Amino acid sequence: MSFDPQDPVFTLHRGGKLVVNSAVPLSTRDDLSLAYTPGVAQVCEAIAADERLVHEYTWVRHTVAVVTDGSAVLGLGNIGPRAALPVMEGKGALFKQFANVDAVPICLDTQDTEEIIATVQALAPSFGGINLEDIAAPRCFEIERRLDEALDIPVFHDDQHGTAIVVLAALRNAAAFLDRKLERLRVVVSGAGAAGVAVTRMLIAGGVRAEAVVVVDSRGAIHRGRADLTPTKRELADLTNGEGVSGGIAEALRDADVFIGVSGGTVDEQAVAGMAPGGAIFALANPTPEVHPAIAGRHAAVVATGRSDFPNQINNVLAFPGIFRGALDAGATRITDGMKVAAADAIASIVANELRREAIVPSPLDPRVAPAVAVAVAEAAVRDGVIRS
Amino acid sequence: MSFDPQDPVFTLHRGGKLVVNSAVPLSTRDDLSLAYTPGVAQVCEAIAADERLVHEYTWVRHTVAVVTDGSAVLGLGNIGPRAALPVMEGKGALFKQFANVDAVPICLDTQDTEEIIATVQALAPSFGGINLEDIAAPRCFEIERRLDEALDIPVFHDDQHGTAIVVLAALRNAAAFLDRKLERLRVVVSGAGAAGVAVTRMLIAGGVRAEAVVVVDSRGAIHRGRADLTPTKRELADLTNGEGVSGGIAEALRDADVFIGVSGGTVDEQAVAGMAPGGAIFALANPTPEVHPAIAGRHAAVVATGRSDFPNQINNVLAFPGIFRGALDAGATRITDGMKVAAADAIASIVANELRREAIVPSPLDPRVAPAVAVAVAEAAVRDGVIRS
Repeated sequence: MSFDPQDPVFTLHRGGKLVVNSAVPLSTRDDLSLAYTPGVAQVCEAIAADERLVHEYTWVRHTVAVVTDGSAVLGLGNIGPRAALPVMEGKGALFKQFANVDAVPICLDTQDTEEIIATVQALAPSFGGINLEDIAAPRCFEIERRLDEALDIPVFHDDQHGTAIVVLAALRNAAAFLDRKLERLRVVVSGAGAAGVAVTRMLIAGGVRAEAVVVVDSRGAIHRGRADLTPTKRELADLTNGEGVSGGIAEALRDADVFIGVSGGTVDEQAVAGMAPGGAIFALANPTPEVHPAIAGRHAAVVATGRSDFPNQINNVLAFPGIFRGALDAGATRITDGMKVAAADAIASIVANELRREAIVPSPLDPRVAPAVAVAVAEAAVRDGVIRS
Repeated sequence: MSFDPQDPVFTLHRGGKLVVNSAVPLSTRDDLSLAYTPGVAQVCEAIAADERLVHEYTWVRHTVAVVTDGSAVLGLGNIGPRAALPVMEGKGALFKQFANVDAVPICLDTQDTEEIIATVQALAPSFGGINLEDIAAPRCFEIERRLDEALDIPVFHDDQHGTAIVVLAALRNAAAFLDRKLERLRVVVSGAGAAGVAVTRMLIAGGVRAEAVVVVDSRGAIHRGRADLTPTKRELADLTNGEGVSGGIAEALRDADVFIGVSGGTVDEQAVAGMAPGGAIFALANPTPEVHPAIAGRHAAVVATGRSDFPNQINNVLAFPGIFRGALDAGATRITDGMKVAAADAIASIVANELRREAIVPSPLDPRVAPAVAVAVAEAAVRDGVIRS
């Protein structure tokens, strides 16, 4: 793409997409002495005496850092922290629009796992949550796990769990629309990066049988017999593919009910044609779906993509704003699987009573979604006992 | 002080003092595809191809990180990053109010010099400038110097230079009011922490003769003969105190024209009484000035404090908003001494034609100050050749 400063995209982006505003008046001497010295010292002393008050008397209760190392941005790949900033600002704008969460983009000038972890730990006191974004696999897994252990605020890698939650929501409604049971579906997940791994785990947490899932990476179906697996893929091999399917995507898809593409690769019509009739195809790669919806429609009863110009868009924005709003409102210290499943159920429920082939998920602009997700997530946080004492 | 949630300070602070807002519309599908995918990818690619465009098409051009380790907060000392957050939020609110700069509080969970430097370097791509705040001496000196060398955006430790700039502005106008020349004043600086060191250097950069300045720390006048000096104080000893004055504050003040207190200690009336008549006393400690203004007024013709309830308040807010606005507007890569002196001159000039004993500096609320400082700082940046190419 060429750079044309007159293009509407560039005129919109001039000066960026976020601003920081003061929430208090500062026009008089009295305003100054309440919001700044000498008044502010009382608030500082109160927090020094009881650190939990930081959630009451600072912005952290409604604030999330959107942290990236710029290594896996959209479909663009490793473009670095500065080029990633427009995406993180966009994320911040969506957080605000849909859930009134105040999000600050933090683009890191390092792609070293230990340095990323150390940096996020160091800056965590200013924020109520950490949304990891566009960090490449496999380091995204370790970064999220270690930060989740180290910090007492929610840590959530959206490329993994945001996608996974919306996929689970879509599959619930697709199954309902098709009058099928999740526990009886045979599912193929194409792609074993951040999204593929999380989608697989989320579907299993949501009721799909682990043995009935086959994950396919660039070298074919993941099964116990493969010698070339990373630790994360080894776990998948142990968990999934009960029949030990081997071979490529065509072999994996034979008689499958559901195809979920999160790979970026493309899949031949011939391979898709081998699926069991009346199933679902979620071809989520952007901008080019693994299977074009027109082709997918010949072989599946329900089709979804990641794009806004086809029906059934699987868009993370259905999940992350409400997830963090709910976690922050509840004072949750982490985001559990239970909270993620609750979010998926809440998303699905918005359109559950008006299911149509072309509307198994709500529109990304549906204003009912984030509040419903927030309530469900907050309730699940209480159930799961992860509320700050 | 006790914690009373009904106190106006606490009701004002509930939920914090800053919010992040979206600067772009996000109500329609078209809005989404411009501000987020797929449109945003064009902006990412343009910046990836030419990183300088980050200053044009993201928020960095108007954004500053206010970074603290919570080790020297107001007069409260080492209260930690969470208790420091209300001050950093207040700073952000002032940045917005006076110069439309978007400031993000970053409170670090470390007080280790190397970790602080590494963290700020890592998060720098998201910001157009770094305002260091309330970091204890002597590590503040090394942190600022190393970050200034490592980063291509302005780095400014406000407790040092903000105070120093406003002191220079006040001294310029005090000298004019008293019809004295800066080059002929004998100046005593009480305190050799962050502010004392910077005030001393700034006054010398602004025209006070180095030999005519005596800096006093908790052990007395700093002179070449002392064996107990840190590297920073050793530099001061080599630079200042041409007459080799030794002893305590009383000895240092004998026949001095100007007393500048940035120590937090108190000074006896007897010591002040030894000053030359018709001089100036700036007793800047908060909340308790080194010399009460009522006492200072008996021995000096011009008196200033750090407090809003006495005349001539020396308040950093006269400097930092305009300094960063000017540096960001100009695309400056650092903040030079020339830019600091220009800021001081701009602050002084606002009231230079209407000087009164009780108004040698503008009010902190004077809306003319920040724009004048910004213009002067931007011009000085061009003169000093520190504009990003």
